[in-house]
Amino acid sequence: MFQKILVANRGEIAVRIIRACKELNIQTVAVYSTADEDALHMQLADEAVCIGPAKASESYLNIHNILSAAVLTGAEAIHPGFGFLSENSLFAAMCEEVNITFIGPNKKVIDQMGNKSNARLMMEKANVPVIPGSSQSITTTDELLSIVEDIGYPVIMKAVAGGGGKGMRMVFDEKQLIPSFQQAQSESQAAFGDNRMYVEKIISPAKHIEVQILGDKQGNVIHLGERDCSLQRNHQKILEEAPSPFLSDETRKNIAESAVRAAQYVGYENAGTIEFLVDADERFYFMEMNTRIQVEHPITEMITTIDLIKEQIRIAYGLPLSYKQEDVLFTGHAIECRINAENPSFNFAPSPGTIDYLNLPSGGLGLRIDTAMFAGSDIPPYYDAMIAKVITHGRDREEALSKMKRALEEMVIEGIQTNLSFQLSLLQDEEFVTGEYTTETLSERFIPHWLNEEEGN
Amino acid sequence: MFQKILVANRGEIAVRIIRACKELNIQTVAVYSTADEDALHMQLADEAVCIGPAKASESYLNIHNILSAAVLTGAEAIHPGFGFLSENSLFAAMCEEVNITFIGPNKKVIDQMGNKSNARLMMEKANVPVIPGSSQSITTTDELLSIVEDIGYPVIMKAVAGGGGKGMRMVFDEKQLIPSFQQAQSESQAAFGDNRMYVEKIISPAKHIEVQILGDKQGNVIHLGERDCSLQRNHQKILEEAPSPFLSDETRKNIAESAVRAAQYVGYENAGTIEFLVDADERFYFMEMNTRIQVEHPITEMITTIDLIKEQIRIAYGLPLSYKQEDVLFTGHAIECRINAENPSFNFAPSPGTIDYLNLPSGGLGLRIDTAMFAGSDIPPYYDAMIAKVITHGRDREEALSKMKRALEEMVIEGIQTNLSFQLSLLQDEEFVTGEYTTETLSERFIPHWLNEEEGN
Repeated sequence: MFQKILVANRGEIAVRIIRACKELNIQTVAVYSTADEDALHMQLADEAVCIGPAKASESYLNIHNILSAAVLTGAEAIHPGFGFLSENSLFAAMCEEVNITFIGPNKKVIDQMGNKSNARLMMEKANVPVIPGSSQSITTTDELLSIVEDIGYPVIMKAVAGGGGKGMRMVFDEKQLIPSFQQAQSESQAAFGDNRMYVEKIISPAKHIEVQILGDKQGNVIHLGERDCSLQRNHQKILEEAPSPFLSDETRKNIAESAVRAAQYVGYENAGTIEFLVDADERFYFMEMNTRIQVEHPITEMITTIDLIKEQIRIAYGLPLSYKQEDVLFTGHAIECRINAENPSFNFAPSPGTIDYLNLPSGGLGLRIDTAMFAGSDIPPYYDAMIAKVITHGRDREEALSKMKRALEEMVIEGIQTNLSFQLSLLQDEEFVTGEYTTETLSERFIPHWLNEEEGN
Repeated sequence: MFQKILVANRGEIAVRIIRACKELNIQTVAVYSTADEDALHMQLADEAVCIGPAKASESYLNIHNILSAAVLTGAEAIHPGFGFLSENSLFAAMCEEVNITFIGPNKKVIDQMGNKSNARLMMEKANVPVIPGSSQSITTTDELLSIVEDIGYPVIMKAVAGGGGKGMRMVFDEKQLIPSFQQAQSESQAAFGDNRMYVEKIISPAKHIEVQILGDKQGNVIHLGERDCSLQRNHQKILEEAPSPFLSDETRKNIAESAVRAAQYVGYENAGTIEFLVDADERFYFMEMNTRIQVEHPITEMITTIDLIKEQIRIAYGLPLSYKQEDVLFTGHAIECRINAENPSFNFAPSPGTIDYLNLPSGGLGLRIDTAMFAGSDIPPYYDAMIAKVITHGRDREEALSKMKRALEEMVIEGIQTNLSFQLSLLQDEEFVTGEYTTETLSERFIPHWLNEEEGN
């Protein structure tokens, strides 16, 4: 096994990875920016290297500094966590060049799946249903018109090289089509030096259902079931659960098999997630593949008792999967609430600061809180607002929900604003309780309603 | 279901029960002594009633005050937790008289199992192996001599009415037999007004193995596997694990079946534990039955995902067991370390005081910390020194151990002395790691050795 791993991340996921390494008896190297000088991840690791100033582009995204830290400390592998460099194929390639194992899939697969148009093409070849749309990238309005005639409105246009919403436009009728296309193209050209676009039908209302995959270097691929991540605000997930309360057993089986087929087709290794949209008739469509561990991985761990971070490390070292598909037993139901340092009443504005007092309700069966917070810790303004994940597991959905409610009610975080009370309201929302919520629920109905109620108080 | 339950206990078990009630949507009443005015259990409950001064005999053991609190608040049931009134049949009987459900077995079974000589007799009838010894209580030296000739030395004599070590003597050869018997008899007469004794062979070295039982009012009994609780100091358990690393599968099966037979024979309802001694040849002997929930119940919960406190409440309400024997799936391995407010280097002297700073490593898969501590909370000197239970679950013993090690290493408790470093040493002890430890390991070898090492430092 590896002797030493560098963790190229911060916050709760860095802490999560360092703890997994400790349990595997692997030495750890933390990297930190000057804004994280007292952060938990740098305190817990065996060694810690400062890699630059607060701004992420100069520290947590600074490939040169991170690789230097790895070489200097003699780390044999790097775990990128999520966000930052986790889906950066250049980083994966440079790790390879200095003979350090990148804990993730190989750079070719990262590239193939990172190019949304190419990913779509490969999924079609793998016989995985894709959203009706352009299977080649398009550059002319003629190509665009012919496809949209085929698939009908509404449609979404995205930059092939895109990300972060740049070069993306939704179009609901013909009048807007050409102008929007041209705007999106020039935006993409400006941002990425590339004006190739693709267009897809908008599937809405829909369920965001994603399947967790594990593949090893020996060519084995298994799935660990699905997660329902439909509750999103500005494409940020807020609350996730596993299994999905919406899917029939037949669809559950089909979507998992499609995900395994997809991963096998691209020769996927390590942990990955295939995201699908599922419409009201349970037709499902490939959306994208995330070639990394995800924020919401703990709910899958809770229903399978499989430690995904440890599996990632084992796979990267070259070991075969510890589990066959038939060894994966699904037990009960799990929910994750993301606790953010933000003020939901004030348009979810980030609320950095110092945690003056902290009480985490850690006890009882089926409750887990993944966080890098401690009493006295700082939430710097430079990074993600997510500061804790509260995860509950019950023998059924009702029990997981009741556990979550009591856990959030007990939790005390003083010194900063959080979305705790927002999450508590959401847990009691009727559409959430029935499980029928979609990707539209939060922004179209719940949030406007909740803000009104808040104002009334 | 019950609308309101009074929790007749304090500390982590009171908190554990209140949380279970919240998750079942049941209102809770806490009772507290004047020493516990800011305790977590009274803060978390919906109502809280002060039942007297700090001294337990005037508060947590004060049947009159507790029943008054229950009647005044309209509680329909009382959960006694462990210790205090949990095995007091008079309390169970008085609950019945005021029409309040005692969450536990009926008073007759508490009495039957509380009388050690009678329990032994019933087990013989139920065809459960008992420790060689007197099956009737004895009062004369002739009876004693005839039995000891049969079973051989070493033997232990105990008062039938005994408890707390009073009227108890160990005898290793004939010379000591009669004098020790006479001393024990007069001690018992003085303490309990009863000079009846029983005598048993001492099984040592031995494993302390106990089986968790659940029975309902419909007559169903299931077992939830065994726990290995051999690591004890002065009959106080320090660290427990499930399953036992020592038992063969055949013995595991036999001992569980014996426990079910025992519970069925006495018509046991609610959660209970049958304790056995197991010798080096895996012969097992009934020791006693605990007619209540136990401190170490979480390790059973972790390997079965069955919530024992919730089951207790459901059973007491009259519902049938939620699980059949074949529904009980055992997954992985669990360990519990008891964290005590004490100074192991100073003969484990209690260390009450205020928790100035607290950091509980709550995150990751398979870690649970049951505690009533929070930053700023008081550990009063009047009660038990146990302040937290750290429980880990892994897919095998090695993983559960590695999780426990990293959890204890991360844990920060400032303001009082604890046994954290003692527990960390124990986790690395070779006899513990091999799983071959017995009830003699701690006092005979580990503790003297550890104290020597400490002095050296």
